[in-house]
Amino acid sequence: MDDSSDIARLIALMARVPGLGPRSARRAVLHLVKKRSQLMVPLGNAMQAVAQSARECLNCGNISTHDICPICADTARANGQICVVEDIDDLWAMERTGAFKGRYHVLGGTLSAIDAIGPEELRIPRLVDRVTTENITEVILALGATIDGQTTAHYIADHLSGIIVSTLAQGVPIGGELDYLDDGTIGAALRARRQL
Amino acid sequence: MDDSSDIARLIALMARVPGLGPRSARRAVLHLVKKRSQLMVPLGNAMQAVAQSARECLNCGNISTHDICPICADTARANGQICVVEDIDDLWAMERTGAFKGRYHVLGGTLSAIDAIGPEELRIPRLVDRVTTENITEVILALGATIDGQTTAHYIADHLSGIIVSTLAQGVPIGGELDYLDDGTIGAALRARRQL
Repeated sequence: MDDSSDIARLIALMARVPGLGPRSARRAVLHLVKKRSQLMVPLGNAMQAVAQSARECLNCGNISTHDICPICADTARANGQICVVEDIDDLWAMERTGAFKGRYHVLGGTLSAIDAIGPEELRIPRLVDRVTTENITEVILALGATIDGQTTAHYIADHLSGIIVSTLAQGVPIGGELDYLDDGTIGAALRARRQL
Repeated sequence: MDDSSDIARLIALMARVPGLGPRSARRAVLHLVKKRSQLMVPLGNAMQAVAQSARECLNCGNISTHDICPICADTARANGQICVVEDIDDLWAMERTGAFKGRYHVLGGTLSAIDAIGPEELRIPRLVDRVTTENITEVILALGATIDGQTTAHYIADHLSGIIVSTLAQGVPIGGELDYLDDGTIGAALRARRQL
């Protein structure tokens, strides 16, 4: 290890970034030092800018540089639909498809008895509020197909009434081969079969 | 993708860090925003500090925050030995072992006809100078066991005279099983066998 403390400290911090470990952090820092003006300086500046300006949207929990995120601020997206996601990366994944034109609600996780995460930790009360105040007609639950995800979906559905509550379809992914799919998915796709 | 330009720009820059791609960059940035004060702010500051202070040691090519790196500045390490490495990560790897007590010389790569890298690009003339001015008695070539690494080793050996030029031993790695080793390594280990 280099004993110049600045460099050693940068490597130690980089090693805490998800996706990097001690070895890849060293390699990354070495690359950054070599690409100082093209990469390291802009990256350091961008990091400080985001650290200063990024905040959670007060309405939906999305990350943005405003108190109300661009999606919540866009009146064209007030179409009566809210898509409920576990975390912000799910929101980003949904936005990349361009398939959803409504607004989002980021729970910040799923209900979990083991981790002692209850409805209050998950912005569920805020979701119930929004359904009334924003004249919502449909809540789409885009939660993971896991035990905790499905538990959370059922809990939310039980607490919303008078509106449509839907979930994403389960089935064969585009380009998926039956031979490589698990039995649960094939079974779900068969039960949800549709007429051509 | 989030349309807040600061965040999008940070993700784009993070995706250029070796070891991260577009997907892991998004995950990393999300983690950084969540760990703003513990990780993002110190990381941004450390990056700017290193970008400002890091430079190549004028003597050996190591990265440091001084013009002459701590190893070259340490007179206790002037033991007449120079260890020649391809790049700074090799120097760090050697330093972590604590096995070498002399100084280093970082070539910055290997000779390569294909990539048009000649001796002038590699600090080889500087190495020849140092052998004279620093009263060097042994140059240890710790270069990769690749074609280019070995070509470079032979070129350097040809240009140094009157001193010992050695290379790292080749053989079975500690904990290595013969069954998993390539034939070349087993052959080299057999030829370099030593009496117990």
